[in-house]
Amino acid sequence: MNANDIAAAVARRLPDAERFFAELARCTRDGDGVTRAAWSPQDQVGIDMLADAGRSLGLEVAHDPAGNVYLTLPGRNRNLPAVLMGSHFDSVPTGGNYDGAAGAVAGLVVLAALKESGVVPACDMRCVGLRGEESVWYGIAYIGSRLAVGSLDPAEAARLVRDDTGRTLGEHMKDLGIDPSGLAGAPYVTPANTKAFLELHIEQGPVLVARGLPAAIPTVIRGNVRFPYARCLGEYAHSAAVPRGGRKDALLATVELVGKLDALWQTLEDEGHPDTVFTVGKLYTDAAEHAMTKVPGECRFTLNFGGTSKEVLARMRSRTYVLADEIAERRNVSFELGDCVGSDPTPLDDGLRARLRDAAGALEIPAIEMPTVGHDASIFARAGIPAAMVLVRNQHGSHNAAEAMEIADFGEGVKILAAAALGVAEG
Amino acid sequence: MNANDIAAAVARRLPDAERFFAELARCTRDGDGVTRAAWSPQDQVGIDMLADAGRSLGLEVAHDPAGNVYLTLPGRNRNLPAVLMGSHFDSVPTGGNYDGAAGAVAGLVVLAALKESGVVPACDMRCVGLRGEESVWYGIAYIGSRLAVGSLDPAEAARLVRDDTGRTLGEHMKDLGIDPSGLAGAPYVTPANTKAFLELHIEQGPVLVARGLPAAIPTVIRGNVRFPYARCLGEYAHSAAVPRGGRKDALLATVELVGKLDALWQTLEDEGHPDTVFTVGKLYTDAAEHAMTKVPGECRFTLNFGGTSKEVLARMRSRTYVLADEIAERRNVSFELGDCVGSDPTPLDDGLRARLRDAAGALEIPAIEMPTVGHDASIFARAGIPAAMVLVRNQHGSHNAAEAMEIADFGEGVKILAAAALGVAEG
Repeated sequence: MNANDIAAAVARRLPDAERFFAELARCTRDGDGVTRAAWSPQDQVGIDMLADAGRSLGLEVAHDPAGNVYLTLPGRNRNLPAVLMGSHFDSVPTGGNYDGAAGAVAGLVVLAALKESGVVPACDMRCVGLRGEESVWYGIAYIGSRLAVGSLDPAEAARLVRDDTGRTLGEHMKDLGIDPSGLAGAPYVTPANTKAFLELHIEQGPVLVARGLPAAIPTVIRGNVRFPYARCLGEYAHSAAVPRGGRKDALLATVELVGKLDALWQTLEDEGHPDTVFTVGKLYTDAAEHAMTKVPGECRFTLNFGGTSKEVLARMRSRTYVLADEIAERRNVSFELGDCVGSDPTPLDDGLRARLRDAAGALEIPAIEMPTVGHDASIFARAGIPAAMVLVRNQHGSHNAAEAMEIADFGEGVKILAAAALGVAEG
Repeated sequence: MNANDIAAAVARRLPDAERFFAELARCTRDGDGVTRAAWSPQDQVGIDMLADAGRSLGLEVAHDPAGNVYLTLPGRNRNLPAVLMGSHFDSVPTGGNYDGAAGAVAGLVVLAALKESGVVPACDMRCVGLRGEESVWYGIAYIGSRLAVGSLDPAEAARLVRDDTGRTLGEHMKDLGIDPSGLAGAPYVTPANTKAFLELHIEQGPVLVARGLPAAIPTVIRGNVRFPYARCLGEYAHSAAVPRGGRKDALLATVELVGKLDALWQTLEDEGHPDTVFTVGKLYTDAAEHAMTKVPGECRFTLNFGGTSKEVLARMRSRTYVLADEIAERRNVSFELGDCVGSDPTPLDDGLRARLRDAAGALEIPAIEMPTVGHDASIFARAGIPAAMVLVRNQHGSHNAAEAMEIADFGEGVKILAAAALGVAEG
């Protein structure tokens, strides 16, 4: 089956994909966007819809102990390692419908197109619906894929506490009928049973929109350095009665730290590191204590650095500690930066990237190469499973309710994915 | 009756004052501190306790249409304007027990001491328990005293919205059985019926503690310039996928604005304005939207400048607008600074200050002169009623739960107040 035949079969399945996205959004609507917390009834909607769609197509349906779902199109030799596609169903709060559901649905569309065409590939081809990719719920990212490949201690995972509910992941799993003690077994996805992981994902920035292109093939996944639970402690005081020298102002100290890190970011850009990013997503005085007329005694915040260079990330991390010490001493406050988490930059597999480039070329779909942000693909890559990605153009950015992917662009991305995935299975 | 006799009578009433403070704290306890929202059941506790104490002493008890309570020791000539003492019962959230209840109780102690001593002054002497002095509840300060003197439009006051409940002052008044339509009448306190306002208040800074003195006599009330409802609007975006130039980061823009205003404050100190203060009491990304992995699209904050120079305050105000415009344009966000409220510095009455100094001298109580922060006294002064104050030493600052006034220091302040107030009544 050549690339154009596959592309035509994919195109015939796009109306089904559109209906899938619409129903998923309807069931997980939250204001203007959607909210699908990791291991909640809302990401379970996606998991269940994917399983139902797989059963309707006559695919094999299975769940791993973490509650990720897998659809399998059996290959001619069931003993060969499989080609795996997919992405995650959880979202950020009031986020968009396509990050990362587009990747799970893309895998479904590829399997449906092959099944409809009567293709029996050389090895099994699988699609996975993951959960727990977004760090917002339990403080760390990629929990579902880490549990699948065995790179996260199961007991530690079960003890993770969800930020908004204060309950553990183990408790939330039990709510969904998943027994966390089942996590203790052997990894479900390994280099022995999986020869490649291919993930389609919306682009979460403005580059493809600006360039007028439907898709991209990432070269490397940015690493990051994150302080998810930093705070500054000072002393509450009357806003007018205490002179400058007598204050322990937690907010102004935090503002100075953040301002200096922002200046460092600018310096890095000027020095030629355009892929470096810095975000303070959360910063807040204590709503139960703060007032216009009080010097703030506490300020909580997050720091999130991203980049493609391990050295640059290490520099931002060490600079954060140095600046915090210096500011704390001068301003008579203390910083508790908390755990520093993150990941190294992860190169994507050269051979798989060549397959994707070749597929795009054969289909005459213009696709550039560029770095991308953290995705589940990095977890499979670090577990020794060759991984690569396809990015699809997406309007209005991501991690917000206005996120919007056109189904035609999705179709172009899935065509590249399908042609490359079948090539990998056969090759 | 000489100053020392008055002081002795005051000293005999201090155990009653101590019991009053303890009961008030017990009834309005909130964690480590107290919370008495303006026009809530909690500040009503203070109002009712003052009224009950007045009735027990055989004083006249009345309420003005705003729900402030007045106790009156009748004078020999009821037609002469009265001497008024007092302060407010509302507190900041989890604040201290003495800001400003100490001033209301001080007035009660003075009237009780005079009544017990059989003094019938030349004119009426009154004590008022005010409400709504703290700006934290309805966004503006001194609401109770403004309504008493008629310097706040009653309809506007009734429409003010309480920050935490979202309900109007008119609705909260009705909950307490106060009919807001009653506010429309003539002012209750005027220069024609009140010859002086004397307010005792805890010092809300560390100066008296540092100097080892029990009391101070303020020279001027600091003015302030405040933006209670400022915000910055940008655009939520993925924290790693959008390059620096493509961001509309509301938090980093706000951090730059606050950092530059902090630097301006330092410059003003260096230029010789040690009475200038700057506080950002509240600053927060949106808890319903923010995440470590999202560029913040919104940040809310307050700005609060204080000073004894009208020119310095005007400079900080205009600089805020200029900086906000410049930063907004450069960072591709918008600032909505909202209403700018505040008050000019208010000099206190020279004649009353001389009375207070003389009383302190006669009683051999060491009391320095210094500027103070905003108090109800400024409202009476601006309404044409001569006003002055006594500050009492207070440990651990104010607007926080650790605020602590020793009853002996309170006694020294009340002795100065009593001797001066009787002198004003007789003079």
